[in-house]
Amino acid sequence: MGRHAGQPTAGTRRAPAHQADKDHRSHPGPAQWPHQYVPRPGNLDPAIAARLKRSADGLVPAIAQQYDTGEVLMLGWMDDEALHRTLTTGRCTYWSRSRQEYWVKGDTSGHFQHVKSVALDCDADTVLVKVDQVGAACHTGTRTCFDDDVLLRAAD
Amino acid sequence: MGRHAGQPTAGTRRAPAHQADKDHRSHPGPAQWPHQYVPRPGNLDPAIAARLKRSADGLVPAIAQQYDTGEVLMLGWMDDEALHRTLTTGRCTYWSRSRQEYWVKGDTSGHFQHVKSVALDCDADTVLVKVDQVGAACHTGTRTCFDDDVLLRAAD
Repeated sequence: MGRHAGQPTAGTRRAPAHQADKDHRSHPGPAQWPHQYVPRPGNLDPAIAARLKRSADGLVPAIAQQYDTGEVLMLGWMDDEALHRTLTTGRCTYWSRSRQEYWVKGDTSGHFQHVKSVALDCDADTVLVKVDQVGAACHTGTRTCFDDDVLLRAAD
Repeated sequence: MGRHAGQPTAGTRRAPAHQADKDHRSHPGPAQWPHQYVPRPGNLDPAIAARLKRSADGLVPAIAQQYDTGEVLMLGWMDDEALHRTLTTGRCTYWSRSRQEYWVKGDTSGHFQHVKSVALDCDADTVLVKVDQVGAACHTGTRTCFDDDVLLRAAD
């Protein structure tokens, strides 16, 4: 099926775009974060939406972890709709704070994250998505986003 | 040495308190997040501070991962000073948004996180701390904070 087949409508936000996700940092983004969260119709299961605790901009951090090796691949942000799409399309979908739009990881790069499991933490303010990452998770080409800037390694 | 010996002063924020971290959700917290970030003197290496990208409230999400098994244990928040303490004391230290104070994980529960490595992501807006977790990471008593609220498990 088409990669957007079966996806819900985007509510008041724009539908997913097809820009390369690898260059998401090249977009300057708005001058100020966070944006005021304006509640809007969403497709997320109301039972989940009712307990999700969002930051002031309506987002929760979402950790992507390789399901078999345990590698922490990246951290993105989800609103209710992005979480709904992640739960229902099998592809990890984030809200891009810099581009202000939904972002299906891999939509252009091909580096999809196939969803294996999704869990909320004990406070329902963080999402953990276990995925099967195609290729590099990081737009720099490294496997994870945490490979290149190590601040400390403790001696054993 | 005492558990706070050698720690820097807390600047304009309160010094770490000794409340149990296991009941951090019982504190109602302020009515509105995020708080406006007010830059203040910190002890973080200026080379790190210069590239750290903080949210509007001056914080970055910090993922704690068990260093050997790869389990994602929890997500907390750090400001510059919490990151500095994490890098220099060997104990994972967060900024508690609900209590508005530094929070040495395990200070009361004994469930310390002994720091093994610290890395920033490619955007320098997320911290990954690999730790050796003593006991349960979650205040509910489960090993990780993601054990009890699974939204989806995909069929293989």
